[in-house]
Amino acid sequence: MTLVGEVLATGDELIHGALFDTNSKFLAGELERLGVEVRRLTVTGDAPGPMRAAIAEACGRADVVVATGGLGPTLDDRMRDVVAEVAGGPLWFDEASWRQVQDWLLNRGRPVPDSNRRQAMFPPGAQPIANPIGTAPGFAVTLGRGRLFALPGVPREMKAMLAASVLPEVAAMPGLTPLAQQWLRVLGPSEAALGERIERFMVADRNPAVGITASGGLLTVRIVGTAKSAEVAAAACEATAAELRPLLGDWLFAEGAVDLPELVLQRLRAQGRTLALAESCTGGLIAKALTDVAGSSDVLMGGIVAYSNASKTALLSVPAELVAAHGAVSEPVAAAMAAGARARFAADVAVATTGIAGPGGGSPQKPVGTVCFGLADAAGARAWTARIPDLGRTFVRDRAVFEVWRELLRR
Amino acid sequence: MTLVGEVLATGDELIHGALFDTNSKFLAGELERLGVEVRRLTVTGDAPGPMRAAIAEACGRADVVVATGGLGPTLDDRMRDVVAEVAGGPLWFDEASWRQVQDWLLNRGRPVPDSNRRQAMFPPGAQPIANPIGTAPGFAVTLGRGRLFALPGVPREMKAMLAASVLPEVAAMPGLTPLAQQWLRVLGPSEAALGERIERFMVADRNPAVGITASGGLLTVRIVGTAKSAEVAAAACEATAAELRPLLGDWLFAEGAVDLPELVLQRLRAQGRTLALAESCTGGLIAKALTDVAGSSDVLMGGIVAYSNASKTALLSVPAELVAAHGAVSEPVAAAMAAGARARFAADVAVATTGIAGPGGGSPQKPVGTVCFGLADAAGARAWTARIPDLGRTFVRDRAVFEVWRELLRR
Repeated sequence: MTLVGEVLATGDELIHGALFDTNSKFLAGELERLGVEVRRLTVTGDAPGPMRAAIAEACGRADVVVATGGLGPTLDDRMRDVVAEVAGGPLWFDEASWRQVQDWLLNRGRPVPDSNRRQAMFPPGAQPIANPIGTAPGFAVTLGRGRLFALPGVPREMKAMLAASVLPEVAAMPGLTPLAQQWLRVLGPSEAALGERIERFMVADRNPAVGITASGGLLTVRIVGTAKSAEVAAAACEATAAELRPLLGDWLFAEGAVDLPELVLQRLRAQGRTLALAESCTGGLIAKALTDVAGSSDVLMGGIVAYSNASKTALLSVPAELVAAHGAVSEPVAAAMAAGARARFAADVAVATTGIAGPGGGSPQKPVGTVCFGLADAAGARAWTARIPDLGRTFVRDRAVFEVWRELLRR
Repeated sequence: MTLVGEVLATGDELIHGALFDTNSKFLAGELERLGVEVRRLTVTGDAPGPMRAAIAEACGRADVVVATGGLGPTLDDRMRDVVAEVAGGPLWFDEASWRQVQDWLLNRGRPVPDSNRRQAMFPPGAQPIANPIGTAPGFAVTLGRGRLFALPGVPREMKAMLAASVLPEVAAMPGLTPLAQQWLRVLGPSEAALGERIERFMVADRNPAVGITASGGLLTVRIVGTAKSAEVAAAACEATAAELRPLLGDWLFAEGAVDLPELVLQRLRAQGRTLALAESCTGGLIAKALTDVAGSSDVLMGGIVAYSNASKTALLSVPAELVAAHGAVSEPVAAAMAAGARARFAADVAVATTGIAGPGGGSPQKPVGTVCFGLADAAGARAWTARIPDLGRTFVRDRAVFEVWRELLRR
């Protein structure tokens, strides 16, 4: 027995428009760290009907429901009204919340449109949740089995309110089951081959549970355990990992429940070494992934996105004859790019990518998916080539980045 | 009256793990282009109970249901079994599908593990859907009101099978309502201020519907219309856009239903101009966003991620005295970075960013969120500063990128 959770995201733009729902996954992770078993994520648009049905159903199935979106000041923000309908009563106006909304706007020299008054209206029985960094207050209300927390859809506001108000209340609920995770990162086998190798661990009711995720050629063996305390759950995950390691052998190249760019930065930082990049086919993907991590500047000196041959020569000191003799996508050029980046940025280690991400640019000798990598350090520069299956531009680029992470983590 | 659609994604990793569900949004878009009104997206894990409930419910509410995941060869792939339970009958083995799975593996010199046999089992009444680029066949089956299409979770396989098998069947269904979209991109006002300005358009049952999406300071006014044909719907959206434009005035900086990086590339390509980048605080984000677009190499010459002051001097020819006199985050340095990148890459236009993304690095004079931009072209180099609210590293970086898109689209 444990507490069951669901997460609900609302907003037409999450179905039709320009935005991905990244909130729900984040919320699921935060709830699971406290021991809530999250069983379902739901997205609806702004139309009241499907939103009302989804809220009522989730509160019938789950103990904790966190919903995002629909709390803004405009007419298509309908969370308050819909929850009031489910609760079966009229909205009420909260003077204290209205003052907070006004103060927030006035402190920033902004006008206070009358439409913001809507944001201080709450469903019957709801407790307002203050928003420290925006105008939209949230609320908590009990509907049937479920405790519903309604938060804004803007990620930074959602996260601030979750940490300040929602997680403390959830953490105090009786019946939580602590959870721990361990990830083993694998490059090499197919998903089926990996599945056969570790088949006896992948049974339905095992604790810790073992599963496989595939993404751009990267396979992740996920170990998820529950126990009376987070420490016991972590120990159980580690015991399962210890059984899996010999089965994975050389396929295994990294461990831990952190993302690979962060792991690469941690590793280099621990070694006291700095990094530079020379990216052609990955076009800034590696730099972007590393600089997404706060504090990356102590390790990452910088990078060059060298798309044109001229820029490889001018910026990375790759001899023009090398490009002429071997082509831009070649091991000698990749090695020279890495050496050039290492020298330019005065870094300890530099990696380089040059390849054909597609859809155009392939040839019989160098089909789409051919990527050459270079790595330069104090010992010199070396290069290698991967023939990545031509499964689309995104796949080739993502897979090339995984190759770089693997190489940097192997060392 | 129109056909109602739902999209379902399954997989523990979509709730607990390392992957975002990007399939569902894509599927919703493809269904809506055919005129299916998608009302709900649902994610469940691999556990059979919640998966079975979600499938049965979706098929009770919707005419078209597309589900992804759970078709792989391993034991935690349970879509086939769960749908058979909902259909109320045993799985059957399809010899033809099994031959396709074997051929696919053998043609690639891979072993044929016995576990792959599972992939040729189908629920009662199901028609197999061939997978041209992977081992996992899908299937279509009618369950109550809904026609359920089960596809693999691997995006490239899902997309290939959707285009070849699912969309043609859906397009032939009676009752479809064609849909069109138009996006107006706005930087400047708050969401509430924009909402008040266009309030009379944002009523519940308007067609075309008008809504607002906020993302990192970028506001998008979405116009979504349905009509008897896609052409009539597009004309109705354009008529609404024509009414909105005068209300938006200077706030409006771009239009169209394509993403901003693609719009920037289209604009520069049409002008016959090339682009170079010098990124400090955005750390490759701009390069990454542009090189995500296939064919970007004819416009983007390259970029430099110059994190350290030394790299600004060595790679972008920014005079060291300029950095010493004004600091790395300053308009003179931003202008010099842009001029340096333009010269290094021999590009027509270059943009530069240098700022403080946080969480560390701020000072009273230059708090976190201070970002200086430079733009160099044949007319010379100029610079400007934005004080972006310190709402987190991701916000500051994303907002800085929007400033660059706006500037490049304004010209």
